[in-house]
Amino acid sequence: MSEFRNGRTLEVPKKMKAWVLDDPEQLRLTEKPIPQPGPAEILVRIDAVAVCGTDLEILSYGLPAIIEGGMPFNKNFTPGHEYMGTVVQLGQGVDDFKIGDRVTAEIHAGCGRCERCREGMYTSCSNYGLNYGDKDKGHRANGFTTDGAFAEYAVNNINTLIPVPDDMSDEEATLVVTAGTAMYGLDVMGGLIAGKSIAVTGPGPIGLMGVAMAKCLGAQPVILTGTRDSRLEMGTQLGADHVINIRQENPVDKVMELTNGKGVHYVLECSGASNALNEAAKMTNRGGRICLAAFPHEPVPVDLAHLVRNNIYVYGIRGEGKSATHRAMAFMKQKRVDATIIHTHTFDFAETPKAIHYAKERVEDAIKVVVKMN
Amino acid sequence: MSEFRNGRTLEVPKKMKAWVLDDPEQLRLTEKPIPQPGPAEILVRIDAVAVCGTDLEILSYGLPAIIEGGMPFNKNFTPGHEYMGTVVQLGQGVDDFKIGDRVTAEIHAGCGRCERCREGMYTSCSNYGLNYGDKDKGHRANGFTTDGAFAEYAVNNINTLIPVPDDMSDEEATLVVTAGTAMYGLDVMGGLIAGKSIAVTGPGPIGLMGVAMAKCLGAQPVILTGTRDSRLEMGTQLGADHVINIRQENPVDKVMELTNGKGVHYVLECSGASNALNEAAKMTNRGGRICLAAFPHEPVPVDLAHLVRNNIYVYGIRGEGKSATHRAMAFMKQKRVDATIIHTHTFDFAETPKAIHYAKERVEDAIKVVVKMN
Amino acid sequence: MSEFRNGRTLEVPKKMKAWVLDDPEQLRLTEKPIPQPGPAEILVRIDAVAVCGTDLEILSYGLPAIIEGGMPFNKNFTPGHEYMGTVVQLGQGVDDFKIGDRVTAEIHAGCGRCERCREGMYTSCSNYGLNYGDKDKGHRANGFTTDGAFAEYAVNNINTLIPVPDDMSDEEATLVVTAGTAMYGLDVMGGLIAGKSIAVTGPGPIGLMGVAMAKCLGAQPVILTGTRDSRLEMGTQLGADHVINIRQENPVDKVMELTNGKGVHYVLECSGASNALNEAAKMTNRGGRICLAAFPHEPVPVDLAHLVRNNIYVYGIRGEGKSATHRAMAFMKQKRVDATIIHTHTFDFAETPKAIHYAKERVEDAIKVVVKMN
Amino acid sequence: MSEFRNGRTLEVPKKMKAWVLDDPEQLRLTEKPIPQPGPAEILVRIDAVAVCGTDLEILSYGLPAIIEGGMPFNKNFTPGHEYMGTVVQLGQGVDDFKIGDRVTAEIHAGCGRCERCREGMYTSCSNYGLNYGDKDKGHRANGFTTDGAFAEYAVNNINTLIPVPDDMSDEEATLVVTAGTAMYGLDVMGGLIAGKSIAVTGPGPIGLMGVAMAKCLGAQPVILTGTRDSRLEMGTQLGADHVINIRQENPVDKVMELTNGKGVHYVLECSGASNALNEAAKMTNRGGRICLAAFPHEPVPVDLAHLVRNNIYVYGIRGEGKSATHRAMAFMKQKRVDATIIHTHTFDFAETPKAIHYAKERVEDAIKVVVKMN
Repeated sequence: MSEFRNGRTLEVPKKMKAWVLDDPEQLRLTEKPIPQPGPAEILVRIDAVAVCGTDLEILSYGLPAIIEGGMPFNKNFTPGHEYMGTVVQLGQGVDDFKIGDRVTAEIHAGCGRCERCREGMYTSCSNYGLNYGDKDKGHRANGFTTDGAFAEYAVNNINTLIPVPDDMSDEEATLVVTAGTAMYGLDVMGGLIAGKSIAVTGPGPIGLMGVAMAKCLGAQPVILTGTRDSRLEMGTQLGADHVINIRQENPVDKVMELTNGKGVHYVLECSGASNALNEAAKMTNRGGRICLAAFPHEPVPVDLAHLVRNNIYVYGIRGEGKSATHRAMAFMKQKRVDATIIHTHTFDFAETPKAIHYAKERVEDAIKVVVKMN
Repeated sequence: MSEFRNGRTLEVPKKMKAWVLDDPEQLRLTEKPIPQPGPAEILVRIDAVAVCGTDLEILSYGLPAIIEGGMPFNKNFTPGHEYMGTVVQLGQGVDDFKIGDRVTAEIHAGCGRCERCREGMYTSCSNYGLNYGDKDKGHRANGFTTDGAFAEYAVNNINTLIPVPDDMSDEEATLVVTAGTAMYGLDVMGGLIAGKSIAVTGPGPIGLMGVAMAKCLGAQPVILTGTRDSRLEMGTQLGADHVINIRQENPVDKVMELTNGKGVHYVLECSGASNALNEAAKMTNRGGRICLAAFPHEPVPVDLAHLVRNNIYVYGIRGEGKSATHRAMAFMKQKRVDATIIHTHTFDFAETPKAIHYAKERVEDAIKVVVKMN
Repeated sequence: MSEFRNGRTLEVPKKMKAWVLDDPEQLRLTEKPIPQPGPAEILVRIDAVAVCGTDLEILSYGLPAIIEGGMPFNKNFTPGHEYMGTVVQLGQGVDDFKIGDRVTAEIHAGCGRCERCREGMYTSCSNYGLNYGDKDKGHRANGFTTDGAFAEYAVNNINTLIPVPDDMSDEEATLVVTAGTAMYGLDVMGGLIAGKSIAVTGPGPIGLMGVAMAKCLGAQPVILTGTRDSRLEMGTQLGADHVINIRQENPVDKVMELTNGKGVHYVLECSGASNALNEAAKMTNRGGRICLAAFPHEPVPVDLAHLVRNNIYVYGIRGEGKSATHRAMAFMKQKRVDATIIHTHTFDFAETPKAIHYAKERVEDAIKVVVKMN
Repeated sequence: MSEFRNGRTLEVPKKMKAWVLDDPEQLRLTEKPIPQPGPAEILVRIDAVAVCGTDLEILSYGLPAIIEGGMPFNKNFTPGHEYMGTVVQLGQGVDDFKIGDRVTAEIHAGCGRCERCREGMYTSCSNYGLNYGDKDKGHRANGFTTDGAFAEYAVNNINTLIPVPDDMSDEEATLVVTAGTAMYGLDVMGGLIAGKSIAVTGPGPIGLMGVAMAKCLGAQPVILTGTRDSRLEMGTQLGADHVINIRQENPVDKVMELTNGKGVHYVLECSGASNALNEAAKMTNRGGRICLAAFPHEPVPVDLAHLVRNNIYVYGIRGEGKSATHRAMAFMKQKRVDATIIHTHTFDFAETPKAIHYAKERVEDAIKVVVKMN
């Protein structure tokens, strides 16, 4: 019975264990009151949470809003935004889910009232981060601006939750949002992917899921570039038709060769390398499109003349908008992609710092490191 | 001072006067408690409300949900959805408006949580009408599913409110949502209107505003069809390049003649006539688009073969989605259109039934009849 | 060597055998001069051609332009528009293909100069059918307005040709355009199909390929309705999650049941039944979209009020626009769909009338009947 | 009679005078054979041609294809791409225009056969520049890859020609393509401009026309930034609600102030300044869009992190795609904008080098310098 899934009850206690941020890099296990779900919200018992590269940045630099706004380092905040769990309590008016449902979560719950939310761009909510006190507009981004999932429970807006089928493991379900981010990148570039050529640059989790999603959607060829053969090999398993180790071959030349000199229709940039955008622009053809899903931290030289002369569009993306996570889940649910290929390590909740260490230092070639409750 | 605009105070009493529906066609003046604005909501003191054709249907047949769902005729409901007023009370977390602001209102406030709202289609909210009791999902459509504006006050979701400039009269401000509905029709057909030819069929309020919006956006030619010369003359004043009295000329032949046999790019159908869609399809060219902003009550014969063979798209529209009302207001604010041309009569709040009578029976050629508070 | 594929040479003779239309239903074998490819054109040696439902209409009623324009029945015209073959001669300036390439063909080559072509809507070319004499604008629609493929050779605009991979049979390659038409229907409804629910009504070739394409793109559930279990069974093989025999169940009720009362996001209407659009509208949800890929020949009663009240968009489609055929081929090439399921019969070129008879009368449950050259 | 417009006959002689490029900066008057219009082409007698900033680049560096491809400096080439004239000869099958029609010209005639043309992106034609000899694919870009308008006659593809109304002067008609380029920039950013805020950076001809087009479409506010008060004043005349002299004010701070801290929805970047994209990104809000219609010649540092974190899309544009020139003409024809404000000087054909000198050195504050035939 789901009431005892993983040996845990669906009864909700008063307090929970949670990891919180202190000073940079300081993660401390503490106890917090369990939050109450409001209207349109659900309390989820966390069953598994994956470590994301952004978690590592948050640990070092604080929340994105803090980075940009110069606010002090955030204390007592619980990170963690790639998670899944079990519905244990419903807010007022919620009948879309029921107690015991297994769910995975998107990150962004827009305020639903601002101009951006109203046009469907909820990951760019104008009230981003305004969810406390007098300024409460209802925006949530668990693990970014509201408490995340390195804890026993988390409150979620219902429109961020997606049912997890019975035959999908907890670990795999934590990867849905990663696949959804890649899918969002494909969507913003136009969404009609079948039969189009695409280069994915950078075989991190989003890049690898980008390969998988592009292949599911019928892209051909799917070309993956990177520096490590082990990662490129995973790309091949996930559907890449060609892989390019950029330490051995010039990626622009090779993409041109593979596409008979035409270049690819789309580039999904997931490396954040300094010259990645310039290379992407040379890999695509006139009228091509590039999605930036990663970025270098410092300004880098960009050949804008090439973009303009070739009518190239460049899409920066924040998060996993346009309900792309649902589309990604559709392919995962239909077993069209084996996302577990990128899941390399699992740790207990008590070992969270070790899990983060593995992810950060890529210990034993770690890619996706999952923390499992029990 | 705005506190005493129209001789009325911004102080909010406990009770208000409101017209309510009893049996079909029975409108009764009563007293109601003044509703409280919740989070993301504002209490608006109604200053003016126009009578819409849909109000007349609601008076006869009850609310749309009722028509479709077979529920009993709605009692104690206050209709009225084309209105403007003054902000008198702010719900929790609202700082987008301030007390005393003049505002006009869109009708549809989506729940903000469903799939449709999340993709920006809030007038097609999946939780339409679910705003009471246990089922409360936060949807509002004042004058349709929630109390409307034939009353002294109404609660509004903030995302339905648009600031009214000082130099726009109360009467004109009630027309913004009509213009917004027409604008929505243009948007769904593609939005790139400048230089394109368009036929607007039916010179009711939405049709006439459709002429005005299409002309503002640069359409050429704008052709209006109708049966009454007085209405067509208004169309000319609002920007129609050609008008066709269909009692005197065959509208399809005439449109073809005016477009050198090519037909128009777009048809905005606002007549609801039985053969309107078939005629629209013949007026447009291969690949053309038709928006249905009106409809006959009974099923009518449609030549679907013609639509398919000619790759014609037909867009039924509900309400004023895609924030089109804001776009309509932009042109009205910039004095690019004189919407007051369609405002023909004004009555006091106490005379509301008379106002409705004038609108229904088109007494003295009434088009837009406005009820003004004082 | 491909020069002798099927025992035939790539040398081009002066004359060819071709089936031509005389009076209605009269197909006659004759000899014609082999047409010369002009700039941007290629001469294709026909290797296989499938019989389409539209061929049957053309045999009875003449060309579409004739049906609509009232012109006399077309004599000496060669029908046939679902075909593949081998490149045997290149027009001036053509280097996109080379002699010996196996290709399959889309139908519509827009004039490339009109407003519709310029916006990418080439199946709605404003110069449709204008390809002879003084009026020659370069439009081609082989088998519709220019000679088709029940002949040994046909000229094609290069932008209608798609390379056929070595491991795809001639017979399967004739089905690409059918799949492309279904794909076009999915594209015009928005193209973001993964995770969305869809009903396909009518299990003819386009409907069955619609099931396959929707499933390839990740739709879930895919529901197919029809009257014959054998066809529905094919739908299941091609990816339908549910099939409904409308002789046994009410399709609207059943779709609602299968979607928990929500209705489907999309309906691809391929039956042409009188009440199909009304049923489709009831099967979808508020804000849903319907593509009409088939149609009844006579006007039918349509409940337009339901479309307008529910913000439903209806897309009539002509042909296989937006390069959808390339997208369909991508999935077929990747073996994501076994289109040969719908190929039931093969005849020799000399037996063309028999092939047509089988297709028309559905002899032995014929679906796709292919004529093979040899 | 139009046959003698400007005292010139519609009779076409055998030879024409034309300015041609020799070495960089060397423009020489010579005599050329008059080209013959092919199918879908028209011979236009040039009546007026404006000097564009791109002409100045072509004079110094050769054609764009040459710059990119490293080909030798192009000799005997006639530049000039902002022109209008009179139809004097029709190619085969052309009946869209008639002899004596006044027309203005877009630059890009796509090949009509490539993948980009087929999706409507003809300014990104894959066969760009391939219009000679064996490689002839029919692409034309007069003044770029095919002979331009500093000559007495030029051949044009019919889909690049737009009728000029009688009451529009030759000089004004040369400005349509400039306005069209600005309009294309607005289109690619989404096209729904009414009521949206926009910053135009750089008050060159495209920037000033961008202000005008945005205002025509209902943008509010329209903010123009630049360094020279005389240009900014023109912007005000053309519809700018606010102008910012960036020598006196910080443009980012000022845009934020003018938009109540929200930033603008759109930025149309027309300055080509090194930091323009970074400033544009700071001027817009989360989810905002930037069109690059100008560019610095060298790579410049770009803060990509800001683009990604804020889900900003950046659109490089080549030319005047999507038939935007027709939309621009619609507003000019309707006298919604007085484009002649940016026309400052006129010279005779014989004085072409002087006209170019004025444009290049901005002699007497020259903006648009027009060469007039006579």
